[in-house]
Amino acid sequence: MIIDRLYQLANERGPICIGLDTKLDFIPDYLAKNKTLDLNEKIFKFNKAIIDCTYDLAACYKIQIAFYEAQGVQGIIAYQNTLSYIRSKENIVIADIKRGDIFSTAEQYAKAHFSGDFEADFLTVNPYMGIDAIQPYFPYLDTGQKGLFVLVKTSNPSSKDFQELICENKPLYLHIAKKIEEWGEKYIGKSGYSAIGSVIGLTYPEEFSEVKKVARHTFYLIPGYGAQGGIGKDLAKIFKKEFNGIVNSSRGIIAAHKGIDETESFVNITRKKVIEMKQDIDQWQ
Amino acid sequence: MIIDRLYQLANERGPICIGLDTKLDFIPDYLAKNKTLDLNEKIFKFNKAIIDCTYDLAACYKIQIAFYEAQGVQGIIAYQNTLSYIRSKENIVIADIKRGDIFSTAEQYAKAHFSGDFEADFLTVNPYMGIDAIQPYFPYLDTGQKGLFVLVKTSNPSSKDFQELICENKPLYLHIAKKIEEWGEKYIGKSGYSAIGSVIGLTYPEEFSEVKKVARHTFYLIPGYGAQGGIGKDLAKIFKKEFNGIVNSSRGIIAAHKGIDETESFVNITRKKVIEMKQDIDQWQ
Repeated sequence: MIIDRLYQLANERGPICIGLDTKLDFIPDYLAKNKTLDLNEKIFKFNKAIIDCTYDLAACYKIQIAFYEAQGVQGIIAYQNTLSYIRSKENIVIADIKRGDIFSTAEQYAKAHFSGDFEADFLTVNPYMGIDAIQPYFPYLDTGQKGLFVLVKTSNPSSKDFQELICENKPLYLHIAKKIEEWGEKYIGKSGYSAIGSVIGLTYPEEFSEVKKVARHTFYLIPGYGAQGGIGKDLAKIFKKEFNGIVNSSRGIIAAHKGIDETESFVNITRKKVIEMKQDIDQWQ
Repeated sequence: MIIDRLYQLANERGPICIGLDTKLDFIPDYLAKNKTLDLNEKIFKFNKAIIDCTYDLAACYKIQIAFYEAQGVQGIIAYQNTLSYIRSKENIVIADIKRGDIFSTAEQYAKAHFSGDFEADFLTVNPYMGIDAIQPYFPYLDTGQKGLFVLVKTSNPSSKDFQELICENKPLYLHIAKKIEEWGEKYIGKSGYSAIGSVIGLTYPEEFSEVKKVARHTFYLIPGYGAQGGIGKDLAKIFKKEFNGIVNSSRGIIAAHKGIDETESFVNITRKKVIEMKQDIDQWQ
């Protein structure tokens, strides 16, 4: 199962998820100023350079689709090519799409992002609409080749607005964490973790330990490292004997070269940043 | 302000929102079997035929992006062309995208769907991540030309899973409805309604009256009519002296011709279905 492969990679290489949240101003000058390239090529060639210099270090990549939608059809073509390239290198890719809609619409999202032009290995989904907004993804999970990460406690400051409301004696996010554990029972792999995981921000380590108590088979996608303020020390409380999650860093890695190296050799800085992230996490384990 | 225009159209023409949730098997044979057309052209030509035969009857159109994402890059091109065509006819279009993400990502979604290739007039958004996932859309609302519909109580059966949890003495969806009213205060137009509206399913008329008590300036996008089970009678409790919302019907209108008329004249059935929907709503007012 794909979740077992992700678990294995996280424990072999470190729980490193590289976020390809590619803004145009992250693209180094040697590509950005090349007049022979279309916009989709500039974005893809930048992503490809990052993938080529990190694919042996990363447990997986995460692509935030919003950054590609923001560039219109050209961005969508770059998104398609980036997904396809990561999968051709036999790396795992998470499409960070946070979709959530009624059954007949979720069927279309599942088809869109688990097959065809935009096929990814894992998707992020939003649970606000309940189980029938999640079920249409299950036929793909049945193959063993696909997985989900469902939002639980997000990394942003306003996640408190609704996620922390106390509903029937516990915060909303714990209700959701518990449901995810239930939904995921059917999809537990040899690693002991389910192909239905949770998204929990590194910015909330205490909430994390509450979630862990009700979600023993849940694997985590953990945003909030680096630019959002999370550091390796915060992970010590989450990870103990094993890495039962992956930690996403985006801007801290893919924008590190800006203003320092705008040539093809920018990838040396990228690779160094990934190694530093791994060391920062390892020192606390 | 755009919300005033939508209010005016809803009251002049009836609160009719036509949902372009275009599945490939809705496309009539005369287009589907035409070998000279690319997939994006088949989808767009079908949508265009529907728009051309209904643009004087509809208060607005809603495009569910999932159906286009499911067709890959070709679908996205059809999505772009459909949005652009509706706006060129001076009709209002709601992009039903239900996005929701942290501030820096929501900025990208706002740019993506309020400008450029995928520019729409209104967007649907998901409130689970709190106010900082909504704020990035506000600079566009400041222009008076854009609006939002935020999910409150969705039309699907599982909306009860989390939306009805009792949090601090009232259901979660009422907390959200109240916040939307607060967020929207700054954007109230001459009509008395705000450019930040709510999505509430017609399938939940009782919950609707609870929401109305805390949300006096909120305009509604109401899915659930037709194929999902809602009928005109249900609307009598929601609308009284005026249409302070729009009612979406998709499959009931755009798939009505299937198996009956597969030629260019299918639009006669489409138009008839819209007129019937209007009569069904009017008889209860």
